[in-house]
Amino acid sequence: MTEFTELTLEQISALINEVMIANGCDDANAAALADIMTRAERDGSHSHGLFRVPGYVKALRSGKVDGKAKPVVAKKTPAIIHVDGRGCFAPLAQAVGLPVLAEATAEIGVAALSLTGIHHFAALWPETEYLADRGLVGIACTAYMPMVAPAGSKAALFGTNPISFAWPRPGKTPVCYDMATAAMAMGDVQIAARDGKSVPLGTGLDADGNPSTDPAAIAKGVLLPFGGYKGSAIAMMVELLAAGLTSEQFSFEARENDNGDGGPPRGGEMVIGLSPDLIAGDGWQEHVERFMDRLRALEGVRIPGERRHKNRLDTGPREINATLIETITALK
Amino acid sequence: MTEFTELTLEQISALINEVMIANGCDDANAAALADIMTRAERDGSHSHGLFRVPGYVKALRSGKVDGKAKPVVAKKTPAIIHVDGRGCFAPLAQAVGLPVLAEATAEIGVAALSLTGIHHFAALWPETEYLADRGLVGIACTAYMPMVAPAGSKAALFGTNPISFAWPRPGKTPVCYDMATAAMAMGDVQIAARDGKSVPLGTGLDADGNPSTDPAAIAKGVLLPFGGYKGSAIAMMVELLAAGLTSEQFSFEARENDNGDGGPPRGGEMVIGLSPDLIAGDGWQEHVERFMDRLRALEGVRIPGERRHKNRLDTGPREINATLIETITALK
Repeated sequence: MTEFTELTLEQISALINEVMIANGCDDANAAALADIMTRAERDGSHSHGLFRVPGYVKALRSGKVDGKAKPVVAKKTPAIIHVDGRGCFAPLAQAVGLPVLAEATAEIGVAALSLTGIHHFAALWPETEYLADRGLVGIACTAYMPMVAPAGSKAALFGTNPISFAWPRPGKTPVCYDMATAAMAMGDVQIAARDGKSVPLGTGLDADGNPSTDPAAIAKGVLLPFGGYKGSAIAMMVELLAAGLTSEQFSFEARENDNGDGGPPRGGEMVIGLSPDLIAGDGWQEHVERFMDRLRALEGVRIPGERRHKNRLDTGPREINATLIETITALK
Repeated sequence: MTEFTELTLEQISALINEVMIANGCDDANAAALADIMTRAERDGSHSHGLFRVPGYVKALRSGKVDGKAKPVVAKKTPAIIHVDGRGCFAPLAQAVGLPVLAEATAEIGVAALSLTGIHHFAALWPETEYLADRGLVGIACTAYMPMVAPAGSKAALFGTNPISFAWPRPGKTPVCYDMATAAMAMGDVQIAARDGKSVPLGTGLDADGNPSTDPAAIAKGVLLPFGGYKGSAIAMMVELLAAGLTSEQFSFEARENDNGDGGPPRGGEMVIGLSPDLIAGDGWQEHVERFMDRLRALEGVRIPGERRHKNRLDTGPREINATLIETITALK
């Protein structure tokens, strides 16, 4: 039977901080990682919470990621911000760049933040929610290792290429989603294989390039984009925005240049902010709430982000897998 | 047997111009429509070419659309452009707004054009290709009448909500797609019904809300988004950008406020431009071409827009359905 230990959010944050500093992070890098993983635990997004600590540590110990990196932010135009992460994990580069992006967006109506020299290993909703919490629309995307075959082909070229979108709802939690453009994340395919379950047709191809419902066979083959040709077009857009527009590595370059230590490759991220105040003008909140009311009234519809935001209201301790805590504590 | 008549692109343009002027358009409005439909015929996109003329005429005759409207362009900030179409068809508003958007994007790196007071009845690739032809990235989207049930529900709330994306390839034709976020356009469902064919599960629901492969049953029910929950999230983003961010009508408002003449409702459009020169910096063309080479090398992969661009190279006359020409000529 799985055993759980209760930890407060403060204890979770302190544990991550300690482990990161013990593994070569300076205070700023450790704090950014503790913040991002604690927020994931707070929201019930366990797959991006403490579960990730061993992966971050592995990447630090490999020397691939610099836990003392000092990201450099530059405003190339009043609307274009660039952060060179200098090899840090993405959260610190974001912590440095997002305030500048938000300020520029609020001032000029639309702005773009390109992040390079980062190792992205986290969810994307913290970026878009940061903007939405300030009354701005956020769009973010990043590429990764090639794992997804473009529709029609049998060879991996795209990463799982997540895209996140957040719409601000002043006084309420934003509408926010963050989804892989792969039909299913590789982690979920591996879990299905472990549990002896089948996956829907369209999830991926086996090593011979044949459609399969066997997750173990797909794990040896390639994933497919969600939604066939149309989802593949979205996945391509993510590659072009996250790598082509940032001048960082495309997924295929990340694979070619990877040192094979299993840690997250260097990659790029693109974050775009838009200001409804400046673009839509007065009254946009009430207008959009009429749409949200219609959407919420539909039986069977989930508002993206709502479950996470509900979990967030609980400020009490979280039940954490005891074995995971042991594993993490041993990394100090 | 279907008969065809050969028309040069000049003849196609002149025919559309004449018909539009005969139905109350001034020169500017007629020219914008002739341009957009002639380009569709040139590219082999027949569904957005002459085939649309009767629909445009119907909308003009209903009085819903003003064929003499003079769109007004305003620069709200150095990066935010607004065009009030004053009730025109979208192409004229775009002809007025896109040059201002392209100039702003080239100058400041990212810019947004919101279009309101327009009746969008055309493809979206002309907008994004306009930007890509000038070395810029383009993203465009628009909403329409509610025809698509958000994933999990059985009631139409979203329009077919197309999104277009174009990436510039200096010296080559851009990568460009333009796709409905519905699994299938209603027109294609109706054609399948006429031809007695079935459609894939996931295309839509019948009038009782049950999944169906019978296009005639779906035509009486609702369409579904492509790609399940993930495609539904993209369709929602399109509604929010095209209506929420422009302050124009959401799909459900277009239905509520429609006069029922069958013509295209008033709606909004959002077009975003991004400059790789300013964001990615020098060398982005070669970098992206390495990715494009990989994509093209994959067996079974189509580069979006390639077929249209190949058709475009043919400057000769086009074979047009003779009955369609008769129908259109009768509208003069």
